[in-house]
Amino acid sequence: MRKSIAIDMDNVIADIESNWINLYYKEYGVKVTKQDLHGKPEDEAFPDPVAARRLLYQPGFFRHAPIVPGAQEALIKLQENFDIYIVSAAMEFPNSLPEKYDWLHEHFPSISWKNIVFCGDKRIIDTDYLIDDHLKNLDFCKGTPILFTASHNVNVDRHKRVNNWQEALELLIAAN
Amino acid sequence: MRKSIAIDMDNVIADIESNWINLYYKEYGVKVTKQDLHGKPEDEAFPDPVAARRLLYQPGFFRHAPIVPGAQEALIKLQENFDIYIVSAAMEFPNSLPEKYDWLHEHFPSISWKNIVFCGDKRIIDTDYLIDDHLKNLDFCKGTPILFTASHNVNVDRHKRVNNWQEALELLIAAN
Repeated sequence: MRKSIAIDMDNVIADIESNWINLYYKEYGVKVTKQDLHGKPEDEAFPDPVAARRLLYQPGFFRHAPIVPGAQEALIKLQENFDIYIVSAAMEFPNSLPEKYDWLHEHFPSISWKNIVFCGDKRIIDTDYLIDDHLKNLDFCKGTPILFTASHNVNVDRHKRVNNWQEALELLIAAN
Repeated sequence: MRKSIAIDMDNVIADIESNWINLYYKEYGVKVTKQDLHGKPEDEAFPDPVAARRLLYQPGFFRHAPIVPGAQEALIKLQENFDIYIVSAAMEFPNSLPEKYDWLHEHFPSISWKNIVFCGDKRIIDTDYLIDDHLKNLDFCKGTPILFTASHNVNVDRHKRVNNWQEALELLIAAN
């Protein structure tokens, strides 16, 4: 029986971090680096956290995010042997729902609408693996958690870590 | 530990059937009755199935659906003892995503965004119960399936059936 993998969107396949840094610079003229974000909760890492959070509600924020390098190729490869589900906690930002759907449709056309999940709490999702950048999801998942490196989680020392899609691919292919 | 219930939206808490009948009459002047829909796949039961399906993509279709009688009171009651999740296969109609979110926010304000799931295939949802009108969801769910009566499923003879929210409430309170 094919195993299943739930894959988070933000900072796992959609490069929200770069998008946020770029938009913050464009809107407020302050250049924040990825190094500045290291080990800090995402929105608190910007000089003005309230202003940073406001950007998440700006139309187009999620629609125009760049793709995390290697994600497209890795997902196509993984689909050969696994059932792949995209599972995003999109419900926190309801404005993001159609944007995230359109983004997936454009950049990951091999993912069927049947395999997309927009939710809040991920603890009722039952897949063999969960690839995610947040402990709030990984700590409570029913399958094997895999921590995908993002600036905010660099100091986390629990769960198996992968730093990029090449490492994720190697881990999952070896485990199958 | 509190048990969890996944509750479908269409024809379980949102009266899509009545909405569809009313809109079909308004648009095409043909009055279809609930009796006409008995035992037939939903869109095939209308005189012009293609025209009927088109209505589902009309802006506002999901936003203005009436509430299934008793659903509001029942969910508030169930929340006292269960973790309630609204789980809708909304991904088939991406236009419905913001409409369904807004509809829930208006009519079921006690349901947090953390407890809303919009998905395609429900087989990765793991809750103790699933209340749904479709066998495609109930047949593969991980918990106990509960069939909520809708015109299209009146002839189905598998799974425990409830005909309305009063019956659902009695069943779940007795089982807890």
